[in-house]
Amino acid sequence: MCGKITEEQVGDTVKLSGWVQNRRDLGGVVFIDLRDRTGIVQLVFNSETDKNAFLVADRLRSEYVVQVEGVVVERDPDNVNDNITTGTLEVLCNKVEVLDQAQTPPIYIDDNDTSKESVRLKYRYLDLRKSRMHQNMKVRHQVSKFIRNYLDDEGFMEVETPFLTKPTPEGARSFLVPSRVQKGNFFALPQSPQLFKQILMVAGFDRYYQIVKCFRDEDLRQDRQPEFTQVDIELSFVDENDVMAINEGMIASLFKEMLDVDVELPMRRMTYLDAMNRFGSDKPDLRFGLELMDIKDALQDTGFKVFADAIAKGGDVRAINAKGCGDAFSRREIDALVEYVKIYRAKGLAWIRVTEEEVKSPIEKFLTETEINDILVKTDAQPGDLVLIVADKQDVVWDSLGALRLEIARKMELDLSGKYEFAWITDFPLLEYDEEEKRYVAKHHPFTSPKPEDIDLMDTDPLKVRARAYDMVLNGAEIGGGSIRIHNKDLQQKLFETLGFSEERASENFGFLLEAFQYGTPPHGGIAFGLDRLVMQILHTENIRDVIAFPKTQNHSCPMTNAPDEAEMARLEELGLILKKI
Amino acid sequence: MCGKITEEQVGDTVKLSGWVQNRRDLGGVVFIDLRDRTGIVQLVFNSETDKNAFLVADRLRSEYVVQVEGVVVERDPDNVNDNITTGTLEVLCNKVEVLDQAQTPPIYIDDNDTSKESVRLKYRYLDLRKSRMHQNMKVRHQVSKFIRNYLDDEGFMEVETPFLTKPTPEGARSFLVPSRVQKGNFFALPQSPQLFKQILMVAGFDRYYQIVKCFRDEDLRQDRQPEFTQVDIELSFVDENDVMAINEGMIASLFKEMLDVDVELPMRRMTYLDAMNRFGSDKPDLRFGLELMDIKDALQDTGFKVFADAIAKGGDVRAINAKGCGDAFSRREIDALVEYVKIYRAKGLAWIRVTEEEVKSPIEKFLTETEINDILVKTDAQPGDLVLIVADKQDVVWDSLGALRLEIARKMELDLSGKYEFAWITDFPLLEYDEEEKRYVAKHHPFTSPKPEDIDLMDTDPLKVRARAYDMVLNGAEIGGGSIRIHNKDLQQKLFETLGFSEERASENFGFLLEAFQYGTPPHGGIAFGLDRLVMQILHTENIRDVIAFPKTQNHSCPMTNAPDEAEMARLEELGLILKKI
Repeated sequence: MCGKITEEQVGDTVKLSGWVQNRRDLGGVVFIDLRDRTGIVQLVFNSETDKNAFLVADRLRSEYVVQVEGVVVERDPDNVNDNITTGTLEVLCNKVEVLDQAQTPPIYIDDNDTSKESVRLKYRYLDLRKSRMHQNMKVRHQVSKFIRNYLDDEGFMEVETPFLTKPTPEGARSFLVPSRVQKGNFFALPQSPQLFKQILMVAGFDRYYQIVKCFRDEDLRQDRQPEFTQVDIELSFVDENDVMAINEGMIASLFKEMLDVDVELPMRRMTYLDAMNRFGSDKPDLRFGLELMDIKDALQDTGFKVFADAIAKGGDVRAINAKGCGDAFSRREIDALVEYVKIYRAKGLAWIRVTEEEVKSPIEKFLTETEINDILVKTDAQPGDLVLIVADKQDVVWDSLGALRLEIARKMELDLSGKYEFAWITDFPLLEYDEEEKRYVAKHHPFTSPKPEDIDLMDTDPLKVRARAYDMVLNGAEIGGGSIRIHNKDLQQKLFETLGFSEERASENFGFLLEAFQYGTPPHGGIAFGLDRLVMQILHTENIRDVIAFPKTQNHSCPMTNAPDEAEMARLEELGLILKKI
Repeated sequence: MCGKITEEQVGDTVKLSGWVQNRRDLGGVVFIDLRDRTGIVQLVFNSETDKNAFLVADRLRSEYVVQVEGVVVERDPDNVNDNITTGTLEVLCNKVEVLDQAQTPPIYIDDNDTSKESVRLKYRYLDLRKSRMHQNMKVRHQVSKFIRNYLDDEGFMEVETPFLTKPTPEGARSFLVPSRVQKGNFFALPQSPQLFKQILMVAGFDRYYQIVKCFRDEDLRQDRQPEFTQVDIELSFVDENDVMAINEGMIASLFKEMLDVDVELPMRRMTYLDAMNRFGSDKPDLRFGLELMDIKDALQDTGFKVFADAIAKGGDVRAINAKGCGDAFSRREIDALVEYVKIYRAKGLAWIRVTEEEVKSPIEKFLTETEINDILVKTDAQPGDLVLIVADKQDVVWDSLGALRLEIARKMELDLSGKYEFAWITDFPLLEYDEEEKRYVAKHHPFTSPKPEDIDLMDTDPLKVRARAYDMVLNGAEIGGGSIRIHNKDLQQKLFETLGFSEERASENFGFLLEAFQYGTPPHGGIAFGLDRLVMQILHTENIRDVIAFPKTQNHSCPMTNAPDEAEMARLEELGLILKKI
């Protein structure tokens, strides 16, 4: 292979195949950079070369596919190329065969190519020739392989679950697959193998895993794809601690293997409430402070209407101390922050700038000196600092300050490189209230077990019920999430009721699970990691399309193949479907 | 784990979890067979047991899930059970906790269960508790794992290809997935990653593999499922011999690992024509002889109209010598064979029974003595043998005698156990003529390369063109198939023309491949193995549902979950689809 030629091969005759990266013609000597998946090596055709071979070499162009034979020689010290692994060597060629010619490619096959992503995706086969993209796919392969080996060693069995599954209305939107044999009925592509892995636990498989494609028909955000890959894991006879221990062990080993990072175990754990109160996020980035601080106590009797109202309505007042930003940020930058929090529904952002001499703040006149002092003490504000305050409903305070915290960190250009801050977020609420559907919905999914001590709250105060759920977060991203599942028919039915499912609907959609639970079900739980996101973290890329060979664009299309596309009328006929005129 | 307790643990306290296989109550002593995925161990609760634990144990029933603690002891020699691995041991229990109760299961959790398959599939979670089914899934896991490791070691990279792909009309019927974001358009679930793996070769990936689900919307036969798993492999800069060498090495190692079978390498190779002429099948079972023999020469001038007509029309006359069956088969059995070949369109089956004294045959009177003698010589017929003859069009002779050969082998009850006869079938025809569509269709797929020396025949005699294709067969089943692909735009376009694709259609469906071929494409080829079938061979089962955790029935449904099912009207609305009234 081109990139694997070493000094030990000097004098050897080698046969190489690959693509012409470029050709240079220097006064009767032709230099070719030959590329394959392992790298690049320089070929030389000169006066000693067979004449026909020389003529062929002289006519080679970029991206031609060739096979050559030649002798490995050392380069003249002046011509050593430190940018490639074979930079001290070259191959003096005597034979060359053109296996395929090439037109001039529309993108430059080089990591420094700056083509638009739409062009890169249309010519994905050229884009994937780049060393960086090759490397990305290789890392993805290595991650999968490492996880498989790790789980194999831990006694897990990979079991394939179906892709053509039953459509159920709960959760995100599924892709539907019309059935021809059972005209009028539909399969759904799985959003996850959740029900099947639980069924496998009922079947006594004890330790299951699968690296598997899952599907969600949602509008795409930057880091979502309609099809994505999940590392899906489930275990029997376990509690939260067992699942977390095995999985943090796996992830720590993976990061050691791939990045030589030492992850401290056990990983830190934080309750959902703690994460929201301190970081305004259930996937906190713990690589830096800038924590949210509760300053309500300082303002219990305040005359400032905005704060007083928020407190009176049971809301919250929290602050971030942007250390040093009082000096660093201009008034305009601060005004931009005030605008920024509005995206997150905050009605306003109060700020206090502390200098050696004074405090400056638009709300100074509404607060007493004691109140201001109390705020500064509670936020540990020193000269040079900037205290940013939101008073609002609790979730608005969390969301807006959580987002503001990240925005400030970005503006401060903190050096976060080489930091890997893992944590488990636990004790999530089991339920949320969906204002649109006017009912409770499961925060994770409707098979998540409530904490035993909270079960009674399901009748009295459902939003207070905590789930036996846990998410693994890394540097502000959720990389995995799971829970201990309900394994009891009655409790599962109770939860379905709380979710507002009629008995008929529960039975129609999940009857087989309820029935399965009657024949001896072990306590079980599991987790699923997003493989794409895990690989993104390892490769330090924020573009999910960098880690998928053939990704979809935001409108669910593949610019290379032009999928999706029209179907033949005959096929729709067979499926019993009519296309509505648009 | 239950099945892993060994004599070395005698005296140790162990904690076990599992299912109650059964409970026996023998005069104040309760014996429980406790089962987990590793096997069974006997628990004992007696007068020394904690009284509460004893009472709980006494009330256990089959399939209850329990957790117990106790001491491993040796069994009384009289009570040793040789049927289980822990048969010399038992666990004297002091603690028992019921983790879940169970109703009486509708099927018996035992390998000897004789429930109907429809019931087994409905209660798949119980069926999968059986030791045999567990073992099947474990073997499947081991096969996947072995293949991955083998290919990893050989420098292959696993790359995931999309499931939501572009619908193309060629080949088998695909499942369609309506797009919501691009209403009116459809994705297709891949029948194989064929185009993507070729694109990966264009992209320089050199050695690709994937173990991946594929989909075909066909009516089911015994060994087909709408979703099945493929071991998909592709290599660049290779010819047929390279692909075959790597893959036969992999399969031989797999059979050594799984079954301790020594597969002789290189595997035997046989052209398609040879396989059809000698065995009447392109997936010949080579574990026994009963070859088809050409007896046309003996009948060139025959007055027997049936034979003479067949020969005159350019047909074929072939015979099988069913060794010893002249004595063994009754007249009624022979008549049944005559009926049997009619399934395969043969108009008749002539037979000659040879005894020490005479030959008996319904066609004796139509043939000369010389003709009969020549037939007996050509088929090496000895007293006791039965010669079976079909005269017809070539493909009818192949099909009917190929099927008859297998039928005779079944009736002879040949002992084929322990025999693994692998072969490569090569030199397949590139094209077949489709009478319905009135055009040529690709025998493998339209990306298969013709043999270079046959390319000119594409214009003059397309059916004579041989493909650079190869199938691996084992004991009468095709377990893998592949080819060297076309890697040249012009040749690919020529083949599309031969297949009757308009330029527009070729470009609409496969334009991206044709375009990709312009930017420097290495010669490449590959193969795909059917994982399900491979595992079936290793497990010696003829039921594909034995090797799939959650299979579909013949009408594409899952009796456990009741998929496919109705979709919500709102979802169809979103997709722009109307369901035709049936």
